[in-house]
Amino acid sequence: MAKKGYRVIAEFSIHPIGEGTSVSKYVTKALKELKKARSLRLQVTPMATVIESEKLSNILSAVERAHESLFRMGARRVDFVLRVDDRRDKERRMEDKVKAVT
Amino acid sequence: MAKKGYRVIAEFSIHPIGEGTSVSKYVTKALKELKKARSLRLQVTPMATVIESEKLSNILSAVERAHESLFRMGARRVDFVLRVDDRRDKERRMEDKVKAVT
Amino acid sequence: MAKKGYRVIAEFSIHPIGEGTSVSKYVTKALKELKKARSLRLQVTPMATVIESEKLSNILSAVERAHESLFRMGARRVDFVLRVDDRRDKERRMEDKVKAVT
Amino acid sequence: MAKKGYRVIAEFSIHPIGEGTSVSKYVTKALKELKKARSLRLQVTPMATVIESEKLSNILSAVERAHESLFRMGARRVDFVLRVDDRRDKERRMEDKVKAVT
Repeated sequence: MAKKGYRVIAEFSIHPIGEGTSVSKYVTKALKELKKARSLRLQVTPMATVIESEKLSNILSAVERAHESLFRMGARRVDFVLRVDDRRDKERRMEDKVKAVT
Repeated sequence: MAKKGYRVIAEFSIHPIGEGTSVSKYVTKALKELKKARSLRLQVTPMATVIESEKLSNILSAVERAHESLFRMGARRVDFVLRVDDRRDKERRMEDKVKAVT
Repeated sequence: MAKKGYRVIAEFSIHPIGEGTSVSKYVTKALKELKKARSLRLQVTPMATVIESEKLSNILSAVERAHESLFRMGARRVDFVLRVDDRRDKERRMEDKVKAVT
Repeated sequence: MAKKGYRVIAEFSIHPIGEGTSVSKYVTKALKELKKARSLRLQVTPMATVIESEKLSNILSAVERAHESLFRMGARRVDFVLRVDDRRDKERRMEDKVKAVT
């Protein structure tokens, strides 16, 4: 586990395949599930949700619940992409990554 | 090509491998290259840059130039991820995707 | 452009959203388009197609044609992920990457 | 949880940032960790490792252990991409996905 102070920053994008061209109902549900995990900081972007947490395991648990929730809504096939950036030589939060390049 | 009015929305994340743990200098350069393409709308997020354009080819050209610029800075190995969402049954811009789920 | 001998290795995954849970017809078509680009070496895996080329631009052109072909088949929304690994300090082919880790 | 018979198919790609241009030592270690999870079926490709399992949670646990193992080797920053395809209207294994498109 990373030392106290370090944050894992990740990005999560999910959608069902075969439930119509509009998937916002499903993405809204997934986002609602992520929000239940109080320890996560979230930022919704046009292509994904950025997630910040002290522990990768918290992110993975939330992602798993979000994924499962789409099947409960009736989806038959669900795809997601999770990208994780875990840096432990320097404390930083999601805002710092944007500031560093703009 | 997509009909007039439709926009391709994409997400681009790039970094060199083996040039130190901090890659912000390289990401800043890539972003500068993307900005040269006047036809693109950009939004920087903590994990990527969201790109909106009328044509996929404009996005691909900009991505190629951004990629090449990292080698000109001295990078020996460069990785990127490009995710593209192209919807042609409904006009929408990058902001609409966020509004639809929040 | 990379020096002669160096190869870009990439991975491409594409599917329509909203055309049913089975997308193999569309993936087959995309693959057929990629195969038309004689300069590319391809390897189909369960989650993507690995592409090797002397030039990134050849990969991007083929990806663009594959993407467009799905709309010609009637798809209304198409998503793809392209991951690129471009290493210029060492010549290698796609097989070398597998050998190095197994 | 998916019904008995259904398999989740995923793809995992991991590397450290800032530990040199060659990362095969780290990928080999990550792969070794994945192999410890006996319930997973694995296929190494030039750009990733394909993972098949009865449960997403088994994949996520293995990915977490693989990720952590790179820090134990001394990596200071680790990035990974996990793409998951979970289809529950049809039984299939990783080989079926390749057969369907070639």
